[in-house]
Amino acid sequence: MLYSIVKSNTYQDSLRLMQLSNTLNGTDGVNRVSIMMGTSANKKILRNAGLDTPDLDGAEPTDLVIAADVADASVGDSLLAKVDEFLCYRASMSGRSGLRSVRSLERAAGILGRVDLAIVSIPGQYVTPEVHRLLDRKIHTVIFSDNVSVSDEVELKRKAREGGLLVMGPDCGTGRIGGLPLGFANVVRDGSIGLVGASGTGLQEVMVHIDRLGSGVSHAIGLGGRDLSAEVGGTMCLQALRALDADAATDVVVLISKPPAASVRDEVIGVAGELSKPVVANLLGERAGGVEGNVHYARTLEETARVAVELAGMRAFRMVALGPEQRRIKALYTGGTLAAEAAMLLEDLIGPTTSTDPGHEVIDLGDDKYTCGRLHPMIDPSLRAERIAAVFDDPENAVLLLDVVLGHGANSNPAGPLAAAIVDGLAKLHADGRDLAVVASVCGTERDPQSVSAQTLILEQAGVAVLPSNAAAVRHAVAILQRRDARTVSPASPEPIRRLLSEPLRIINIGLREFAEPLLHLGAQVVHYDWRPVAGGDRKLQALIDALK
Amino acid sequence: MLYSIVKSNTYQDSLRLMQLSNTLNGTDGVNRVSIMMGTSANKKILRNAGLDTPDLDGAEPTDLVIAADVADASVGDSLLAKVDEFLCYRASMSGRSGLRSVRSLERAAGILGRVDLAIVSIPGQYVTPEVHRLLDRKIHTVIFSDNVSVSDEVELKRKAREGGLLVMGPDCGTGRIGGLPLGFANVVRDGSIGLVGASGTGLQEVMVHIDRLGSGVSHAIGLGGRDLSAEVGGTMCLQALRALDADAATDVVVLISKPPAASVRDEVIGVAGELSKPVVANLLGERAGGVEGNVHYARTLEETARVAVELAGMRAFRMVALGPEQRRIKALYTGGTLAAEAAMLLEDLIGPTTSTDPGHEVIDLGDDKYTCGRLHPMIDPSLRAERIAAVFDDPENAVLLLDVVLGHGANSNPAGPLAAAIVDGLAKLHADGRDLAVVASVCGTERDPQSVSAQTLILEQAGVAVLPSNAAAVRHAVAILQRRDARTVSPASPEPIRRLLSEPLRIINIGLREFAEPLLHLGAQVVHYDWRPVAGGDRKLQALIDALK
Repeated sequence: MLYSIVKSNTYQDSLRLMQLSNTLNGTDGVNRVSIMMGTSANKKILRNAGLDTPDLDGAEPTDLVIAADVADASVGDSLLAKVDEFLCYRASMSGRSGLRSVRSLERAAGILGRVDLAIVSIPGQYVTPEVHRLLDRKIHTVIFSDNVSVSDEVELKRKAREGGLLVMGPDCGTGRIGGLPLGFANVVRDGSIGLVGASGTGLQEVMVHIDRLGSGVSHAIGLGGRDLSAEVGGTMCLQALRALDADAATDVVVLISKPPAASVRDEVIGVAGELSKPVVANLLGERAGGVEGNVHYARTLEETARVAVELAGMRAFRMVALGPEQRRIKALYTGGTLAAEAAMLLEDLIGPTTSTDPGHEVIDLGDDKYTCGRLHPMIDPSLRAERIAAVFDDPENAVLLLDVVLGHGANSNPAGPLAAAIVDGLAKLHADGRDLAVVASVCGTERDPQSVSAQTLILEQAGVAVLPSNAAAVRHAVAILQRRDARTVSPASPEPIRRLLSEPLRIINIGLREFAEPLLHLGAQVVHYDWRPVAGGDRKLQALIDALK
Repeated sequence: MLYSIVKSNTYQDSLRLMQLSNTLNGTDGVNRVSIMMGTSANKKILRNAGLDTPDLDGAEPTDLVIAADVADASVGDSLLAKVDEFLCYRASMSGRSGLRSVRSLERAAGILGRVDLAIVSIPGQYVTPEVHRLLDRKIHTVIFSDNVSVSDEVELKRKAREGGLLVMGPDCGTGRIGGLPLGFANVVRDGSIGLVGASGTGLQEVMVHIDRLGSGVSHAIGLGGRDLSAEVGGTMCLQALRALDADAATDVVVLISKPPAASVRDEVIGVAGELSKPVVANLLGERAGGVEGNVHYARTLEETARVAVELAGMRAFRMVALGPEQRRIKALYTGGTLAAEAAMLLEDLIGPTTSTDPGHEVIDLGDDKYTCGRLHPMIDPSLRAERIAAVFDDPENAVLLLDVVLGHGANSNPAGPLAAAIVDGLAKLHADGRDLAVVASVCGTERDPQSVSAQTLILEQAGVAVLPSNAAAVRHAVAILQRRDARTVSPASPEPIRRLLSEPLRIINIGLREFAEPLLHLGAQVVHYDWRPVAGGDRKLQALIDALK
């Protein structure tokens, strides 16, 4: 038999109600049960599910509806008792975790003093006026709720942009600001990679892989899936990119989005290309890879993480101050195939030589024309060590790129003579107030007779940036030139966003209590605003109240 | 002043002599010194270096020449004394390491009984007749020496192919057979990845990265840089590819080469495509990536290693016996962007749907049309668990592909209900004598509330292949279909090569002693053949002796 009860003005959030429905479904005598707020959408769902009773028609959006298919009326009554018990229990649990819970935005703001961020997870139809009130108070907002119209999103984001604020969402699944997880968020390491994403699980997958590769995240700014649509125009994406460029904790910026509208894509990539920091862009499926200026494209989410981690690692190396005339990469290799790979990658990354380009050079010192009458340079490092002095002397050289090959048969300490020549060369340059970047990779394992870590240390102590592969070393050499050419001044970012990303946050949580708990455990200042629809859910009356304020 | 001495019939290998020259250069009173065998090439080098004395003219290839620029004659005499001392010391050291050293091939072969492999590192001009003698005795050969003519290489490799033998080189820098390093070789883990390479440091870089990624090498067969030229025609490359396909220790085959001749490329890729095992091909710079049947292309050497390690990992999963009608990948996702990435990669890897293809399907269960009136499947896993039964019922389904998203906000045990549904589904299929592959990735970290390792274990115990990323899971799903379609019979490989790759090796080392030492330390049976030119270096006389045998 069908059984239904409507409890008027008993607002509960939908997550809690669905958990309750799942718990009660299939218990003794209960064939099916749905517990929902009496919105028109929910009433339609109940009718489609064959749970329509005449009671339903009169239910208001702020009424709690229990609709069930049960064995008999007594089962229905026990169901109602269980629902009441659950709601009472939840109510009595509130406050136990130490989370302060209040019934108005004003009260929450009063407790916190300054409010930086609000997390909004109330039903979609109530979101827009609440977020307008937050933006009026200069509060950045994360909107997890969906079912907000595009026109409302456009309006809210326009307002946010004018106020120098961020609106993340609607339908923003995940985020992380200053180490605090927002919504559905994996627990990852703090680090120097900042992410912007119009994609929830895309951000999650990239953050997880950054963490697995031993690196970490500064911020992850979710935008909601429609931010890069033609209607919304990437408003918040552009704010977020500029903000991460200006943010001191961020070294590398990641941008993830499903394919954006063409017009928006051009503007977003245009701004990404103007940033002072490297950007890794994954516009799902849009292009395979490659580099344009400071923007590195990746095709898969794991590749996005890998490229970002590699770029973040590069930022940790000694900064080299290059003069404007220093434009050449000079590579002195001992391995023929490593040299061939370097030449191939240089062409991939830099393209054909231009008039301002003095011609990068990859020399394979293992080639017959260099070894005639001498040992192969993998056995005898003296040939290369001798040639290094000339590299430091040439004022057009910017980067000296090297391979070091270990293993049986190779020299027992190839890094030694190299390091000595590099220390000499750098000392002379530094005495002249000049500099040169030295980049290398070591092809070897820990169990090789020379030990890759021991050889790496010798090079690092000589001032060499040692990358984990030949390909990474070549990319780093190119990145050094690109960084020299990059603007050093970041585009301006509004002061409220700068503060959001750099100062301890005071947060109001509006909607699902669950989102406040992890923040509280991490020591953030959070107040829960136990929101429920005002004025019996009458949006017109609410609009009138807003207008009168 | 110039000083020179010619010691007739005193052969020493060039590595040792160059080490000696390097040691003595720059010692008291010595401005410059070169110690070389009196070949015409070396005499030219000495003349170009300004070390030409009348003595030089009469020196024979088997004579030792000491040429120096010294302060006075007494320095020259002390130099000669040092050279004699060095040569005597080396002679007295021979035998100390436990390496047996003999003066003829016959004697070496007599000691070992059966001989599998010879390592040849004598001067290039003497190589060809020695290798002919080895091939006549059915001995596989690694030739480290360079300066062997292309026509000799063609002839030697033709003879080897006819005898079912491998000739690796000339100019083969590195190799590894059955765990034994050959020549310039890094110390890497044993494993299931077999490599074939016409590139020395290319092989080394890929092996090093395979090792760093925690995987290992079965064999690495060097070919010499000219094997894939039009003249040589990839003779040995084709032998090596087929041999690794037939080799029980090898699961994945890697092919590395500088860009081959076009005609050779087509034949080599044709054979690679016929193998029963996956192949990772890096034809330096030739193409960016992608998959054709079982052949995966990689652009950089580190990417080559990464793809090979991923494919080797996949071979470790439960083998699934698919029927011919099972052709569909059915993906049930909870993450929208993960689903979008899966769809994109399926199209990348499989291409447009064909008539024999029932249409792969990626369903995003987080889409509104599935969640209407239900919780998001990242919170409530029951929706997906319910739909899994139908996937097992459809006889056209080959692979069930899944994502599992962890973190704050997500279900506290998403793998649990999934695993239960999969165990049920597999049990019913197995009872019918059928099967289905289940492939997943877990988006999460160890510090997530659910713990990625705990969730992975639950899935693995249910029979799921858990890959380290969504992209890897998609590639694995495609690989399962490709493996089902792959021929199960490997192309035939000659019996002598099968034995070379699978049985303990007995090795003759001809030339540089250094190459024998690591083999001896690893417990291999090695005899050193202390080669020197016969008949005063007269190649015509040697040819006559060979002809008379």
